[in-house]
Amino acid sequence: MPEYKAPLRDIQFVMNELLGSEQHYAALEGAEDATPDMVNAIIQEGAKFCEQVLSPLNQVGDREGCTWSEDGVKTPTGFREAYQQYVEGGWPSMTSDPEYGGQGLPGSVGLVMSEMVGTANWSWGMYPGLSHGAMNTIEAHGTEEQKQTYLTKLISGEWTGTMCLTEPHCGSDLGTLRTKAEPNSDGTYSITGTKIFISAGEHDMADNIVHIVLARLPGAPEGTKGISLFIVPKCLPNEDGSAGERNAVSCGSIEHKMGIHGNATCVMNFDGARGWLIGPENKGLNCMFTFMNTARIGTAIQGLGAAELGFQGSLAYAKERLAMRSLSGPKNPDGPADPIIVHPDVRRMLLTQKSVAEGARALIYLAAQQADIVTRGKTEEERKAADAMLGFLTPIAKAFLTEIGYESANLGMQVFGGHGFISEWGMEQNVRDARIGMIYEGTTGIQALDLLGRKILMSQGEALKQFTKLVHVFCKENADNEQLKEFIEPLQQINKEWGEITMKLGMSAMKNREEVGAAAVDYLMYSGYAVFAYLWARTAKVALDTMADGTSEEAFYNAKVQTARFYFKRLLPRTRTHVETMFAGADTLLDLPEEHFAF
Amino acid sequence: MPEYKAPLRDIQFVMNELLGSEQHYAALEGAEDATPDMVNAIIQEGAKFCEQVLSPLNQVGDREGCTWSEDGVKTPTGFREAYQQYVEGGWPSMTSDPEYGGQGLPGSVGLVMSEMVGTANWSWGMYPGLSHGAMNTIEAHGTEEQKQTYLTKLISGEWTGTMCLTEPHCGSDLGTLRTKAEPNSDGTYSITGTKIFISAGEHDMADNIVHIVLARLPGAPEGTKGISLFIVPKCLPNEDGSAGERNAVSCGSIEHKMGIHGNATCVMNFDGARGWLIGPENKGLNCMFTFMNTARIGTAIQGLGAAELGFQGSLAYAKERLAMRSLSGPKNPDGPADPIIVHPDVRRMLLTQKSVAEGARALIYLAAQQADIVTRGKTEEERKAADAMLGFLTPIAKAFLTEIGYESANLGMQVFGGHGFISEWGMEQNVRDARIGMIYEGTTGIQALDLLGRKILMSQGEALKQFTKLVHVFCKENADNEQLKEFIEPLQQINKEWGEITMKLGMSAMKNREEVGAAAVDYLMYSGYAVFAYLWARTAKVALDTMADGTSEEAFYNAKVQTARFYFKRLLPRTRTHVETMFAGADTLLDLPEEHFAF
Repeated sequence: MPEYKAPLRDIQFVMNELLGSEQHYAALEGAEDATPDMVNAIIQEGAKFCEQVLSPLNQVGDREGCTWSEDGVKTPTGFREAYQQYVEGGWPSMTSDPEYGGQGLPGSVGLVMSEMVGTANWSWGMYPGLSHGAMNTIEAHGTEEQKQTYLTKLISGEWTGTMCLTEPHCGSDLGTLRTKAEPNSDGTYSITGTKIFISAGEHDMADNIVHIVLARLPGAPEGTKGISLFIVPKCLPNEDGSAGERNAVSCGSIEHKMGIHGNATCVMNFDGARGWLIGPENKGLNCMFTFMNTARIGTAIQGLGAAELGFQGSLAYAKERLAMRSLSGPKNPDGPADPIIVHPDVRRMLLTQKSVAEGARALIYLAAQQADIVTRGKTEEERKAADAMLGFLTPIAKAFLTEIGYESANLGMQVFGGHGFISEWGMEQNVRDARIGMIYEGTTGIQALDLLGRKILMSQGEALKQFTKLVHVFCKENADNEQLKEFIEPLQQINKEWGEITMKLGMSAMKNREEVGAAAVDYLMYSGYAVFAYLWARTAKVALDTMADGTSEEAFYNAKVQTARFYFKRLLPRTRTHVETMFAGADTLLDLPEEHFAF
Repeated sequence: MPEYKAPLRDIQFVMNELLGSEQHYAALEGAEDATPDMVNAIIQEGAKFCEQVLSPLNQVGDREGCTWSEDGVKTPTGFREAYQQYVEGGWPSMTSDPEYGGQGLPGSVGLVMSEMVGTANWSWGMYPGLSHGAMNTIEAHGTEEQKQTYLTKLISGEWTGTMCLTEPHCGSDLGTLRTKAEPNSDGTYSITGTKIFISAGEHDMADNIVHIVLARLPGAPEGTKGISLFIVPKCLPNEDGSAGERNAVSCGSIEHKMGIHGNATCVMNFDGARGWLIGPENKGLNCMFTFMNTARIGTAIQGLGAAELGFQGSLAYAKERLAMRSLSGPKNPDGPADPIIVHPDVRRMLLTQKSVAEGARALIYLAAQQADIVTRGKTEEERKAADAMLGFLTPIAKAFLTEIGYESANLGMQVFGGHGFISEWGMEQNVRDARIGMIYEGTTGIQALDLLGRKILMSQGEALKQFTKLVHVFCKENADNEQLKEFIEPLQQINKEWGEITMKLGMSAMKNREEVGAAAVDYLMYSGYAVFAYLWARTAKVALDTMADGTSEEAFYNAKVQTARFYFKRLLPRTRTHVETMFAGADTLLDLPEEHFAF
């Protein structure tokens, strides 16, 4: 198993040098504590925990998995103890409201920690990750009493949380969900129904679990407009705030699945469980939307983590494993063969992973800054602009990064040859774990419809224009820079083309709505490569400027320029295919009658 | 788990209508028995066995895996009994030499059975599959005595076989292998060394296992020119031909791996085991090369199987699962939602799998016909031409089909959404099983070097010219066919471009050998899409001609034309990216110093 080493130098580069986090934090409301020194100290401390505590449990979690019994779910060896350490370290409270025990740091600082936790041990990271979903819901929509009762416990880490959305017959299409909430005379509700795929739904890591449950009130409108949100705790809170008697909610079984074995994926049965309404009646989905972007950015991290972990593992292997001679003559003449890192195709696989991991970091941190501004920006205008930008970047980050992160995990495995298929090396686990990223929190197809249909076409392209304008300004500012020319020129082209194809798709969608669905995934992938082109060009600029100013880290900055070059020459051309296939027409997909797919 | 249904209609279409197997068999030496009725009857019978016996064991094999103990390796429940039925049915002997008990049918008939076996249960199919490797070696290079002793038992299926190549420190780079063979006074050899990744190396399905082992004689030249081949049986044969006392070869352990759990991947320890030289001293690798093409085509089937199984599973699910409404209005207005097959992106995933599975079938059967001609062609000229064509098609079939087969397996899983990640549906097993296809029998990178470096550039492009000429003639013959225009025009373009880029790569390789390695995988994938374009255009022609002549199966042929159209519009454009990236230059991969990949 590759031992995870937090890429602190790159984290610092992206935060501070590429995205100017010092100025960013200084401009936020109530982020006074997020000084560079403070943030740096937190990240260093977090890195130690991830490297020393979580990383060694990653393979254990996969091998042992979770086990279900009537008494509950047992998590893998060490998971519970690691969680205790995490709570003692105060990590659950890092970015939450100080009024309820939080430390009030900006969300983007928490995201760096999430990246390190998730790369070291994704399955483990999902337990605190799901708690954040519950925390955010209660913080945004709960009553003062609900916050005192539940939010404080979630923030302290004593209790964990879940999000209970999916039912056996519906996932993306929540409008058809059936779980019922019937009012009791005391103002509470009786929740009845079955929820599936509930990550962290039951476990032995904390005293209580706070389920946020989507359900229908009696007589609620059909579809998505009749869904309400409820808090349903595993144990009903006592007067003194401690976890009391068991509520009528239980885990019926856990799923056997491809990966993330260390995380319990539960079937949750609600048998008239007591619940409390959160937010307005029938507005449950609206309440969810307010922080869905943040949750999806959280999932996007899985793509980054998969690429980073695959890269770390396969880089070490490629330097050690000897096979064949370089085509241009022996590079290790005293040995029996050359290390495989001399072979161009092995380097193609390594550089793909590297450019994906580092590009993903830039994209996710950029999105996290927008999320910071949404909640802490000083002006309404700033907050609104950031919200639009975040909405635009979210489906791209979620789908594009999990797709290319999965590809990267596969390349990491491929570098190992036959050994990659063997469990002990950990590379195949990385592939299995990463595979879910393209599915949960909305599949790639769902994200693509969100991007093209909702975010772009419904805003008449406004969300895209904001972004392409940024790119345009950057290109203009650097038009005379000879060294940057190799990046600026193709970036300018892609940026122009991006606007044009969007317009063209908008036109064809007006004639036939099906064209949106037929083009959406290609359009999303195209957009991902375009955003990456912008980020890699900016990265190259920062690196070249720093070298021009003089630096003791020439090799680091030079590697950034080389990786940017690799990206532009070897990954950006993938847009050539997407731009062609997105205009292939819906008829190539829809003409074949359903009953003629097979004979 | 999807129940496997042998796609008999499509198998017949490809064999008979697309590739004219009747004329093909009639032109072969000693293939008189392969009449259309006979072949059809065999395939029907084989389909029953695969559907009823092997398919139900596929998930069992994955769940139970193999278990190792001092006494040997236990295969999953039912595997042994299925093998007995297979032997009783006479399947192992189908294509072997009648002189040693075989039925003498052409290899291509056997390949159809391999396809059905492999799609129904890949892990199980590897046991008889590996036997074929051993059979072929002994048939081609063994002495009469070796054939009587071993080949007859392999052909009858009483014994199985393995190929023992890989060692812990070397896989692709066999030149560095260390297993020793020391001559004994009785003409036998003592074999000592460790082999890893030996599929079917130990199991409980047959009385004896015949290992074909690569080893070095004392004083043999270094590198690949000092490797010899040995027969090393698990049990030494008695005078009466039965399996006698145990030889000094044993399975030290089995690997825990990502997929193909039902097949035992063994570490084999040879501790002075008795072995018999097969073929000339130090010519072991040459002997292997004679049938490596066939073995690789066998592996290519895994790509076809993964696409077919994924397609069957996800098609059924897509018709049943209800979610969302069609963008152009409800298609199932009386239900709570539409079946997901109405959504264009779901269809994109289904049609990708369909066009990959059917295209792969055409490519593999075409290659199998060439292999038939290599061994049974009536003239030397015919045989030589077929050998060149087979050599050209083999790396493409192996690497391209396992790559797009893996992609298809992933799409099959993706159609299921969250359920795809859950083991009981079988789609994630299909992904895990398919993943090894891109690795064993030479990784994609190795195949790509074989294609571009050895098969094409070393023959001055001759192997490619043969193929592009075929395509050119086909295009010319159909130039005036208006209905075919949408296929012929792009095919003509790609065929021309294929020649041009090959020339261009040849030129740049003369200046810098590293350009071959830097372009090879893109070139291979490009070639795969080009070959598919030819096969799909031919398919469209057959379908259109048949409909013009009048047919009761209009829907079947129409679906072929639609799928060809999908292929040309939505998959062939992938060449646009490959053609660009293959000329990105080796410097984009090699300039970054090894020690600067990470900081």
